[in-house]
Amino acid sequence: MARVNEHYRKLAAGYLFPEIGRRTREFQQQHPDAQLLRLGIGNTTEPLTPSVIAGLHNGVDQLADRETYRGYGDEQGDLDLREALARFYKGRSMEIASDEFFISDGAKPDSGNIQSIFSLDSRPAFQDPAYPVYVDTNVIAGRSGPYNPDTGTYERFIYMPCTKENRFIPELPSEPADLIYLCSPNNPTGAVATHDELKRFVDYARDRKAVIIFDASYSEYIDDPDLPRSIYEVDGAKQCAIEINSFSKFAGFTGVRLGWSVVPKELTVADSDFGTVHSLWFRRQTTFFNGASNIVQRGGLAVLSDAGLQECGELTSYYMGNARIIKEGLQEIGLQAYGGDNAPYIWMETPGGMTSWEFFDKLLSEAWVIGTPGSGFGPSGEGYFRLSAFGHREDISRAVDRIQKRLTL
Amino acid sequence: MARVNEHYRKLAAGYLFPEIGRRTREFQQQHPDAQLLRLGIGNTTEPLTPSVIAGLHNGVDQLADRETYRGYGDEQGDLDLREALARFYKGRSMEIASDEFFISDGAKPDSGNIQSIFSLDSRPAFQDPAYPVYVDTNVIAGRSGPYNPDTGTYERFIYMPCTKENRFIPELPSEPADLIYLCSPNNPTGAVATHDELKRFVDYARDRKAVIIFDASYSEYIDDPDLPRSIYEVDGAKQCAIEINSFSKFAGFTGVRLGWSVVPKELTVADSDFGTVHSLWFRRQTTFFNGASNIVQRGGLAVLSDAGLQECGELTSYYMGNARIIKEGLQEIGLQAYGGDNAPYIWMETPGGMTSWEFFDKLLSEAWVIGTPGSGFGPSGEGYFRLSAFGHREDISRAVDRIQKRLTL
Repeated sequence: MARVNEHYRKLAAGYLFPEIGRRTREFQQQHPDAQLLRLGIGNTTEPLTPSVIAGLHNGVDQLADRETYRGYGDEQGDLDLREALARFYKGRSMEIASDEFFISDGAKPDSGNIQSIFSLDSRPAFQDPAYPVYVDTNVIAGRSGPYNPDTGTYERFIYMPCTKENRFIPELPSEPADLIYLCSPNNPTGAVATHDELKRFVDYARDRKAVIIFDASYSEYIDDPDLPRSIYEVDGAKQCAIEINSFSKFAGFTGVRLGWSVVPKELTVADSDFGTVHSLWFRRQTTFFNGASNIVQRGGLAVLSDAGLQECGELTSYYMGNARIIKEGLQEIGLQAYGGDNAPYIWMETPGGMTSWEFFDKLLSEAWVIGTPGSGFGPSGEGYFRLSAFGHREDISRAVDRIQKRLTL
Repeated sequence: MARVNEHYRKLAAGYLFPEIGRRTREFQQQHPDAQLLRLGIGNTTEPLTPSVIAGLHNGVDQLADRETYRGYGDEQGDLDLREALARFYKGRSMEIASDEFFISDGAKPDSGNIQSIFSLDSRPAFQDPAYPVYVDTNVIAGRSGPYNPDTGTYERFIYMPCTKENRFIPELPSEPADLIYLCSPNNPTGAVATHDELKRFVDYARDRKAVIIFDASYSEYIDDPDLPRSIYEVDGAKQCAIEINSFSKFAGFTGVRLGWSVVPKELTVADSDFGTVHSLWFRRQTTFFNGASNIVQRGGLAVLSDAGLQECGELTSYYMGNARIIKEGLQEIGLQAYGGDNAPYIWMETPGGMTSWEFFDKLLSEAWVIGTPGSGFGPSGEGYFRLSAFGHREDISRAVDRIQKRLTL
């Protein structure tokens, strides 16, 4: 008699984005004429750039020809793509070997799967608010106690509140943590950790033999040259940190699916006697995964070419132009808005003490604009709201215009 | 202090295919002039067909244009691809709703991940020999006891021996099983279960509320119209079976990465009160996965077009021509060979009581041909050897010629 994984029972609610989808569909059915503007999910809208398109077509053409056709590739990813990534990091003065990169089908699967190579009694610490995948995948794996609806937290999990008081950069974990999830530039707050702020975490992790899981998916949105775009810019990070990154926001690959993780070979934990973290992730990936699409990997290689990097830089600049329009637009009507300077997300306080979902419904019904309730990212997100800078410029401008004209404050 | 998932310690050895790769590289280094012929990994070698290439190019072009660009899609897969699959099954008289299909990046991830939605105390039963992913992923999840090197089995796992005495179609589990992994056409034995043989398993599973995980990745290689190409050809299977399938061997997508699973909504288990198996797999996929590449899904849609199906049928026929050459070639020199009639694998007995790895080394050193040791698929595979029909015709013919001329028997 089969039974289901009982940890699914603990999950507090549906995954945030399906819930937004449900409320949106409901509103649209009731108001079929409302032209909704979507600043909710961080979904890219601008076409892929010419070099990348050429790389992808080339990837397809290779499969049309007996001489260049390739079947299964290296589960860890094509060597030339891993070498291109090594050069990309080296260009920023970081030494990562090509076999420390693991190409994947995106940051979401890697963020979700990485916990599976650690023991179930490892205690995770999360920024609060955070991308829900980190928490949910640890619940499903069985690391949490029950959910407490009063606090909005799971027992046994350590939350690191990110508030306006700490500029949305958390303090060190309040209790001993084994796995520390960090995301910078942050989704959802748009905050970016400085070198010194990351160093505190690296020192903590090295002291305790904890592991930092560093999500750098938005690193290409950092404009300020003083802010670190990789945790490996911090000395000692290779001994304690795994970095997860993606071509999704970097190059518009949200639907194309390509990412990478760096698992340094020198990263060890308490009981690495039978295998390093690197060798375990290798075993995990070769057992559960069969590599990213070879066509898509050709696209990734094109992103990392000189022309590709130039073009993708223009793409991220475009979205950052949107971010400025949103942030300034909100500030003009007296709303408190954070982030948006080195990250494609604007994190605003809801006006008049509304809850995040109340503001979601208000924004949807008054301005026909869809955003993301901050509380969906964790209890410290309550009273906040995320607006995404991904969208066509005219839609972003229209959304801001509607918010300014229609929102009753 | 982080610790690693201790279940990795239990894994008996490296994953089969990396070990083959290691021995092959070692031999090649010692014999740099040896021109190796690879009949080991079931890796497709012939180019994608014209309709599919056109579909993929079209998928790329859509992303070059602002009007047709799409970012994140439905995690469950594009609706038009799921509808095309529903029509494909309907053409074979099976009614599967479009929302019972889950598009993935291949059968390997689905085969590995599917166990995660079931409780850890669910006892799995495996065909022996079997594709190693089923066993290994259950070990990593923690369902096994220790590995017993004398028997080549893990404690708590139920093995269903497939031998020449039972035509490589197993008996029902000898102890009560909760999850039953079946693969037909079988990898590695090439055996195909009849309708009546599958019915026995469906009846067993329905009686016990067990779940069958049915891997149909090689279904398009079935030539005999009387043999079932899907478990849903058996009445009642929708109440107890999940089917996993792939475009890899169907259309040459081994490196392109596209597959699907069917999780029927009427499939329930003992404690489905808080969610059906369908809803749990949906939750799992929306949390850990972000959909297959949108470009690749356009390719899958092209496979399922009339022209695509015609072309892909020619592709599978080509490989089946190879299978005949191998099987007959082995039989001509007195070797016992099975499979290969409705499956792209030939399963041969090693001559003179050699072990599978002994024969691997012999075949490599004498004929410069790489195959797959049967023992790598489970203890009942000992004394057997798998040869794959995936290869260019001339390489297959050359390999058979070398085996016939050089192998000392």
